[in-house]
Amino acid sequence: MMPRYRVILAYDGTKFHGFQSQPNLRTVQGTIEAALLKMTKGTPVTVFGAGRTDAGVHARGQVVHFNFPGNIPPRNMLLGLNSMMPLDVVIKDVAIVPETFHAQFSTVGKRYGYRVSRTRFTDPFKRFYTGHYPYQLDLGRIETAIQDVVGTHDFTSFAASGGVIKNKVRTIYTARMVDHPDEDEIYFEFIGNGFLYNMVRILVGVLLEIGNDRRPVDEFPRLYAVKDRQEARITAPASGLYLQEVYYDEAALQQAVAERQ
Amino acid sequence: MMPRYRVILAYDGTKFHGFQSQPNLRTVQGTIEAALLKMTKGTPVTVFGAGRTDAGVHARGQVVHFNFPGNIPPRNMLLGLNSMMPLDVVIKDVAIVPETFHAQFSTVGKRYGYRVSRTRFTDPFKRFYTGHYPYQLDLGRIETAIQDVVGTHDFTSFAASGGVIKNKVRTIYTARMVDHPDEDEIYFEFIGNGFLYNMVRILVGVLLEIGNDRRPVDEFPRLYAVKDRQEARITAPASGLYLQEVYYDEAALQQAVAERQ
Repeated sequence: MMPRYRVILAYDGTKFHGFQSQPNLRTVQGTIEAALLKMTKGTPVTVFGAGRTDAGVHARGQVVHFNFPGNIPPRNMLLGLNSMMPLDVVIKDVAIVPETFHAQFSTVGKRYGYRVSRTRFTDPFKRFYTGHYPYQLDLGRIETAIQDVVGTHDFTSFAASGGVIKNKVRTIYTARMVDHPDEDEIYFEFIGNGFLYNMVRILVGVLLEIGNDRRPVDEFPRLYAVKDRQEARITAPASGLYLQEVYYDEAALQQAVAERQ
Repeated sequence: MMPRYRVILAYDGTKFHGFQSQPNLRTVQGTIEAALLKMTKGTPVTVFGAGRTDAGVHARGQVVHFNFPGNIPPRNMLLGLNSMMPLDVVIKDVAIVPETFHAQFSTVGKRYGYRVSRTRFTDPFKRFYTGHYPYQLDLGRIETAIQDVVGTHDFTSFAASGGVIKNKVRTIYTARMVDHPDEDEIYFEFIGNGFLYNMVRILVGVLLEIGNDRRPVDEFPRLYAVKDRQEARITAPASGLYLQEVYYDEAALQQAVAERQ
């Protein structure tokens, strides 16, 4: 039986057409599979990821798994993979896991971050790594509104249309905004049991509009009730979004939530 | 008489072939001159810069001047130029200055910064914005050695060969290393009355070798004495270097130095 490897990796999503393999496009999954193909000298290895990040979306703690035809110690797998990765991907951790582990289906939660740059003009050093919002923001309004994101809600209004997933109910354990005035940035962070397609970027779009006084501060309950994607309007750009961490056991998830309370 | 404009700008140097115009290559000077050519509807405007940063070198406070055939208020010049800049350049300040002001020849000093990332593998988010040094460093040795950079020295050993400037004596007012362990980075900063070609990158290369115990901690006096570029060996990569600020009056220069003491 082939051993199953769990790999934690970070990547700058700027130059990838997202995580998931697509013919003739540079993707994270394709990049890892190409490296594994070299290591196996031609035996294809399929890589499964925890979350399919879009083009331009970054990861600091993406998780993938694959079965590998050969018993390479995790430390060697880490060095071998890193030696074949381009500079916009880094392998952070490798472990051999039981065959019951699945990068996508074993998750109990994920943590996403979203960086918003608030300079008047786009900061040239942040253009690929933040969303940019140069307009007035009342951070107190955002702090009040974001409390309504915590809990179990039907997020239909916050899911890009066209998804195949029928059940749009998700539970958010942590939703917070951290101000970094020295860097002219604010940072949004969400921990939840699952996230719909584009959900974080739509949440951030609504929160910024609340901060800019374009929506009432109690907008979230209304948006949960109407179940209409058109109501949420703006999707914040991919460049600010980071898949920070994926949780596979309740203890780790609860600890991450507790650390933020 | 045409008014003279002084412009302070920042840029991500990654995708530029340096500051100075070169035929058929994307440069910062060429980008600004192309924007001014549009504003004048065809009258060429020559841009003079404080320092000619190399390909891949960044600036947070580059200064340029030019004479402009028309009297545009500084605020409008700032908005107009920014509207025509690509996303890797931002205009931070515009002022009308006396004709005696020259971006290069009026300088009394400059401040350069150099970021070194210390992660084991290259951090995908820092690959264009830091130098990378994954080896052991004794920061105490660097802190001791860097004191020898302060003062008036013949920096012949620290100048890329081929320059036309004969006098290699420069005065460094501030030379310091700041540790940022949370970010796995160290930051070098130098304020001086002038810098030779590649001088900061060569200084950083020597300092890292001292920290890694490949050179004695009292290496600088010897290198000043030998006046031989071959002795300094390593030039730290362009990606870590930032032209942070250019000083045009002694008071501003002295204040910057005093703030760091």
